[in-house]
Amino acid sequence: MFRTHTCGELRITDVSKNVTLSGWVQRVRKMGGMTFVDLRDRYGITQIAANGNKNHDLQEQCNKLGREFVVQISGVVIERENKNTTIPTGEIEVDCKEITILNESETPPFTIENESDGGEELRMKYRYLDIRRNPIKNNLLLRHTMALAIRNYLDKQGFIEVETPVLIGSTPEGARDFVVPSRVWPGQFYALPQSPQLFKQLLMVGGIDKYFQIVKCFRDEDLRADRQPEFTQIDCEMSFVEQKDVVSMFEGLAKYIFAQAKNIHFQEDFPHITYADAMNMYGSDKPDIRFEMTIQNLTKSFKGSEFIVFEQAQYIGGIVVKSCADYSRKELDALTEWVKRPQIGAKGLVYIKHENDGTIKSSIHKFFTPEQLYAVCKQYSIEKGDLMLILSGDTNATLTALGELRIEMGNRLGLRNKDVFAPLWVVDFPLFEWDDETQRLYAKHHPFTSPKPEDIALLDTNPKDVRANAYDFVVNGSEIGGGSIRIYDAKLQAKMFSILGFTPEQAQQQFGFLMGAFKYGAPPHGGLAFGFDRFVSILSGCDSIRDVIAFPKNNAAKDLMAESPTHISQEQLDELCLIIHKKDSKE
Amino acid sequence: MFRTHTCGELRITDVSKNVTLSGWVQRVRKMGGMTFVDLRDRYGITQIAANGNKNHDLQEQCNKLGREFVVQISGVVIERENKNTTIPTGEIEVDCKEITILNESETPPFTIENESDGGEELRMKYRYLDIRRNPIKNNLLLRHTMALAIRNYLDKQGFIEVETPVLIGSTPEGARDFVVPSRVWPGQFYALPQSPQLFKQLLMVGGIDKYFQIVKCFRDEDLRADRQPEFTQIDCEMSFVEQKDVVSMFEGLAKYIFAQAKNIHFQEDFPHITYADAMNMYGSDKPDIRFEMTIQNLTKSFKGSEFIVFEQAQYIGGIVVKSCADYSRKELDALTEWVKRPQIGAKGLVYIKHENDGTIKSSIHKFFTPEQLYAVCKQYSIEKGDLMLILSGDTNATLTALGELRIEMGNRLGLRNKDVFAPLWVVDFPLFEWDDETQRLYAKHHPFTSPKPEDIALLDTNPKDVRANAYDFVVNGSEIGGGSIRIYDAKLQAKMFSILGFTPEQAQQQFGFLMGAFKYGAPPHGGLAFGFDRFVSILSGCDSIRDVIAFPKNNAAKDLMAESPTHISQEQLDELCLIIHKKDSKE
Repeated sequence: MFRTHTCGELRITDVSKNVTLSGWVQRVRKMGGMTFVDLRDRYGITQIAANGNKNHDLQEQCNKLGREFVVQISGVVIERENKNTTIPTGEIEVDCKEITILNESETPPFTIENESDGGEELRMKYRYLDIRRNPIKNNLLLRHTMALAIRNYLDKQGFIEVETPVLIGSTPEGARDFVVPSRVWPGQFYALPQSPQLFKQLLMVGGIDKYFQIVKCFRDEDLRADRQPEFTQIDCEMSFVEQKDVVSMFEGLAKYIFAQAKNIHFQEDFPHITYADAMNMYGSDKPDIRFEMTIQNLTKSFKGSEFIVFEQAQYIGGIVVKSCADYSRKELDALTEWVKRPQIGAKGLVYIKHENDGTIKSSIHKFFTPEQLYAVCKQYSIEKGDLMLILSGDTNATLTALGELRIEMGNRLGLRNKDVFAPLWVVDFPLFEWDDETQRLYAKHHPFTSPKPEDIALLDTNPKDVRANAYDFVVNGSEIGGGSIRIYDAKLQAKMFSILGFTPEQAQQQFGFLMGAFKYGAPPHGGLAFGFDRFVSILSGCDSIRDVIAFPKNNAAKDLMAESPTHISQEQLDELCLIIHKKDSKE
Repeated sequence: MFRTHTCGELRITDVSKNVTLSGWVQRVRKMGGMTFVDLRDRYGITQIAANGNKNHDLQEQCNKLGREFVVQISGVVIERENKNTTIPTGEIEVDCKEITILNESETPPFTIENESDGGEELRMKYRYLDIRRNPIKNNLLLRHTMALAIRNYLDKQGFIEVETPVLIGSTPEGARDFVVPSRVWPGQFYALPQSPQLFKQLLMVGGIDKYFQIVKCFRDEDLRADRQPEFTQIDCEMSFVEQKDVVSMFEGLAKYIFAQAKNIHFQEDFPHITYADAMNMYGSDKPDIRFEMTIQNLTKSFKGSEFIVFEQAQYIGGIVVKSCADYSRKELDALTEWVKRPQIGAKGLVYIKHENDGTIKSSIHKFFTPEQLYAVCKQYSIEKGDLMLILSGDTNATLTALGELRIEMGNRLGLRNKDVFAPLWVVDFPLFEWDDETQRLYAKHHPFTSPKPEDIALLDTNPKDVRANAYDFVVNGSEIGGGSIRIYDAKLQAKMFSILGFTPEQAQQQFGFLMGAFKYGAPPHGGLAFGFDRFVSILSGCDSIRDVIAFPKNNAAKDLMAESPTHISQEQLDELCLIIHKKDSKE
């Protein structure tokens, strides 16, 4: 037997017990005739004491232990003289009688401490050491706790978890698929699922009226800051439901997760906000409502001056930043540069300072009288000491830029506390979005999303105004999940495909088997999917989903530890009837 | 709201309630002025009654309903005149007031009944209809129940579920990998995991001392009768454990699954049998111990005659088939043909019948005296009425053939009752197996399996005799799971690679990152994996794992419903820098 207890388990009530512990050497401290070893495992740290006066050799053995050696020690639990109140085992130590080195360790490339000295690349290369650190280990524990809570909650609600295939057919709609060459069918490929969308709808046709799955999905995208080529979804679908049934079910799930994982108990219903309001008030379809600072539409107030920028703008909007009238010229210049970065894309930044002495300073004081500016302050509650930041231009672009600016100011003012959670539902999304480049409509969610019944007439006349039975679940400015009520009427589905520019043949080729299934009694159905990695990272307070994934890939889709992807043998290529086209190769 | 109740929910206590149900039309029966509709959903069937005398139009609507139409009905629960005691809702029916057709259905290609008229190909093509049938639906429910029970049990034991990557590096050892071309790294490939073996060992190095995962794995094999290219494993690993710790932990899990899923409560420890005993007694390393009929080694008893077949045989063995002395010549000839099939490979079959009248008849009576045969009957308990079937030849081949014959006779005699479960552990596997074709040793489990400490000396002198710290979990003649204690000593691991014929460079290339990890304090560890599909199919009494997979592929690795794999576009191939080598193409 390698251990009788873990390193996080022994307490003052265990004193005088004979115990055996196994774990990793966190540190060794020699203090005169005594040597103390901090022995660590997943559960905690226990201090081991080797008394050189009683057993010189044993102390010498302990003195030679290196960091991260794996050792087994036996001894007796004794009360500590100098108690450590910061750890649960801090009242005791183990008086060491015997020590066995189970495995040695080279010096690790970074310290195994809560705050490590290793950079992210190094920590990813040696991820197995990074996982020994409390922050990463605790994220994996939280992830496990959340996954189990989700499964038990949904099971109690009558859902069953069904595994859908990973080797599926390629669907050109959506992001780029990862594909898997078939050896048995040379020249043909499987695809890895971007989501189990089609299969979960087929399960509804199959009568499994409450389905869920915590499932790996895959997207071959050019990686942005916080994307992974493989990610995990909580995928759900229900039959015989309307939007309010789905929203209510998964609001219950979300509340349960917060309660189980964070001991946070939401009593009230989560707020609902329409897509239009979210854009107008927060400049975002995933608003962070932990703080106010909502966008004010100033267009009417500022039209009719000689300020050509405003005169030419479709929209003028601003946010009131409380208690920031003392922003210096330098700070405002820096903010101006910030909004002019290509990611934000504003042409410039206008400010109004309502100074503490009641005076008003503004970058547009040449174009507006003090009275006009006072009136603006009054109308938009710019109180003494406040700063208003104003952008103008095309409506959508300006709102989006104001949304980014609002988040930035929220960060600067410390209004985005990671321990505060503000969930909400964004509803009434548009069914389509227009793409200027390809000059066609795309499905905002996906082609199976149902329009609102009252908007169906608009499909023929003004499809851009059709709202969808679609909903997103947003927490702290991150979209955690989203879904929709699906179309289950074959004629309406055909019309959708037509609006989306599919010929009947294309629709048949890509979605034929779903449309075929719908001929045999499709029930009304809808569902949603949560991004599990993101959900865990929000609850863990991590900035990156990489911190909540055991073995993540870097932004170039490489696993730095396992060094994948790799070249494969010519024999493997031959079996798959594949030739690598060298010309475009980076090699 | 689409429904107030499900179709499996209403009871006599609900009489006089106003209810709304939604579901599929199972059947419509017109009986004079009444029409009865059986409405079905996942939860059951409820009878709907439309009274033409009260509402002629409503009855007419019901008369026009087709099989598998999706309908919503509202009405009042009433007590049935003719109660149906075979279903839980059989005491009531719903007096229909209103009916809405939610969706029509074409006539399904096979009947949605427990015993369908559809063949397997047809049922796979329309899997979404097959799932509506109770047998498949109940398998999916059982699978869900088992998965949740496993997760909750292991969680209570301190395990955490960690997701390991699906896009990994290719490892040439083992079966053939499915590979995924990388677009970002042209000419390079990810592989899909055959198991998370390396990653779970890295988690042990990372201090996650109790890991599990229910996880999809992939093997690109030429498909045999009951293999799938993607399958699901219950994958587990523990640190600071010996074989008995692992076996005891997962025996507890297995007992819990049987209790939760089948209400079967095993009180005793599962039996352990060594690999050597399993081969000698059952001719199999996955013995079905639901019935005896163990193999008797007859070699000594039958040597020294003029029967040249026995004289040339390395081994002579037999099984006693109770109460089958009345097998006819024709039946015995058929059995002889059966053992001579290439799959079994015996040269012939010898029998001894101990007739009910006490006489003995045998195909070898010319070579042995009646006294000799009586002595054999006495020694091997061939009682009056019994039949002994005897094979001879090379030891291993003959034992294996006798094992197959034993299973066949068990089937014929009805000794393999699907409602009886006989689990056991097979232990002390050989560490290596010899491959005649390539003239080298292979790892019987995998290259990380630890030899028994007492056999380590044999690694240098007689590696074929080294036993492994490896164990299989077997139920009813199927290997459900297996695992081993791993090597955690870098020197021993290097020796293993050398015996397996890896150069240090090859070992470094293929397993370098694991061996690198082992330099930083690898704990003693071991684990196992259960085949989840097989486990579910055994408990559900299904012959094929296809019946417990929602969307299986056929034996040619095709999804007949989604029609994958498929061709992909030239644009996709170009992005991946791949050319399909047409010459070997089947297209």
